[in-house]
Amino acid sequence: MTPSDNAQKTLSQLSPDVLAAECPSRQILAHLTSRWGTLVMLVLLSGTHRFSALRRRIGGVSERMLAQTLQQLEADGLVTRRVHDVVPPHVDYSLTDLGHEAGTHLAALTGWIEDNLPRILARGQDRAA
Amino acid sequence: MTPSDNAQKTLSQLSPDVLAAECPSRQILAHLTSRWGTLVMLVLLSGTHRFSALRRRIGGVSERMLAQTLQQLEADGLVTRRVHDVVPPHVDYSLTDLGHEAGTHLAALTGWIEDNLPRILARGQDRAA
Repeated sequence: MTPSDNAQKTLSQLSPDVLAAECPSRQILAHLTSRWGTLVMLVLLSGTHRFSALRRRIGGVSERMLAQTLQQLEADGLVTRRVHDVVPPHVDYSLTDLGHEAGTHLAALTGWIEDNLPRILARGQDRAA
Repeated sequence: MTPSDNAQKTLSQLSPDVLAAECPSRQILAHLTSRWGTLVMLVLLSGTHRFSALRRRIGGVSERMLAQTLQQLEADGLVTRRVHDVVPPHVDYSLTDLGHEAGTHLAALTGWIEDNLPRILARGQDRAA
């Protein structure tokens, strides 16, 4: 058995569980649902964006937090950063295939929240009354 | 027009947008995707749980963080806390109808992460190589 076979075997034996504190799935969940992570994924689901366009689209994000969030998602293989060799250089971001799948689930969640916000706020009002 | 008609009108005119910094949908998103919020919703999607059972099921959560998370989700109308009048008193938590809908979307997301973890980790390895 080669080391690569071993790695394959270990991966196929994993039974990922986000409820387990040490499972790496929990870290991926944390990146996808971080304060800005979900919103970045959502915007990139609509297409490739440059840094400045992402920043304009996401209300309230700082340059530093946006850069950190993009780096994290890129390291997870969910976002691709592409540098175009032109003058001045032009950098843009898009979702990988994996990122597109994850983004679809995030969009279903945020879409549900937006669609049901009146119901959710009304519930809060009932409780306050 | 009564004040209640006005409230109805305002709600129906809202066009919720999680990308807008001031939209209340963003706060609901933050609660549902908080570090422990997603995991609490996920466990409650499988049925009613007592506090101690929730705490055992969710690896790494402290008593304080679990209590805070449950209070937040209860205030949003996503979770119901029920006190049973027995000796000793017995308290349990379950999802409301709204919570069940939100939980279904969260379960789709975490299920996707768990199912695709080998692919996600392999991508990370490619990048590190």
